[in-house]
Amino acid sequence: MKYKNFMPCALDMAKLAFERGEVPVGAVIVKDGEIIASAHNETESSNNASHHAEILAIERACRKLNNKYLIGCDLFVTLEPCAMCAGAIINVKLNRVYIGAEDKLCGAAGGKVNLFEKGLFNHTPEVYFGFSADECSRLLKDFFAQKR
Amino acid sequence: MKYKNFMPCALDMAKLAFERGEVPVGAVIVKDGEIIASAHNETESSNNASHHAEILAIERACRKLNNKYLIGCDLFVTLEPCAMCAGAIINVKLNRVYIGAEDKLCGAAGGKVNLFEKGLFNHTPEVYFGFSADECSRLLKDFFAQKR
Repeated sequence: MKYKNFMPCALDMAKLAFERGEVPVGAVIVKDGEIIASAHNETESSNNASHHAEILAIERACRKLNNKYLIGCDLFVTLEPCAMCAGAIINVKLNRVYIGAEDKLCGAAGGKVNLFEKGLFNHTPEVYFGFSADECSRLLKDFFAQKR
Repeated sequence: MKYKNFMPCALDMAKLAFERGEVPVGAVIVKDGEIIASAHNETESSNNASHHAEILAIERACRKLNNKYLIGCDLFVTLEPCAMCAGAIINVKLNRVYIGAEDKLCGAAGGKVNLFEKGLFNHTPEVYFGFSADECSRLLKDFFAQKR
């Protein structure tokens, strides 16, 4: 299976979040070269601070595959996952995680803590940084600048 | 507000999980001395390995309060939260976390890692261990012994 970069699709979700007044983070889950789920942050519209893009994408992907695990699936996300999302990624056994912007304050893929350290838990995804990092980061900066 | 121990209610949820073939972990969320949400693990019935008791209880509590945060609410959970659940607890700003059994393999309240270390993230709940720990732990051991 040839690698394909789905970060532009995750970025489209992040831009949609921005338009809707949500923190602009987007995520897509890919299996066999096809997007099976996509989501953006919905903490405002759903009134739940745990409704991050990754959690919602995982929810949709499990429902789509009718499987409790997402083995063999990859996640593209515009911002480094927080501890909750990194833990969910581990729990559903996602294969690879492609990350846009780093998060030095809350990131759990090395930014603040590293929950993906090999051997720490019973599953460790492969993690890749630097996918459209500048664009992912700029979107967040523009959003918070506008909020102030 | 006088402190009241709701671990027996969380244990009732864990026992219900056991009867239903789910990993027996239960959780309740309390506000002003009243239970506002309760849940048990539903990873099997909902086909989603991220549907831990804490996540579902948080989902129900946010919906009940119609609030993205659970400020001033306390969680009683029969097993030490994993990284995902600890992260969710931080994200929704739960006030206190009362824990039954420790989890040396996956626990994120000190068992394996400690995401509740003061000052690590922008919210740190108060954490208390040792609530009906033996009973909480025995339920899990009985469940996995039966599965083998």
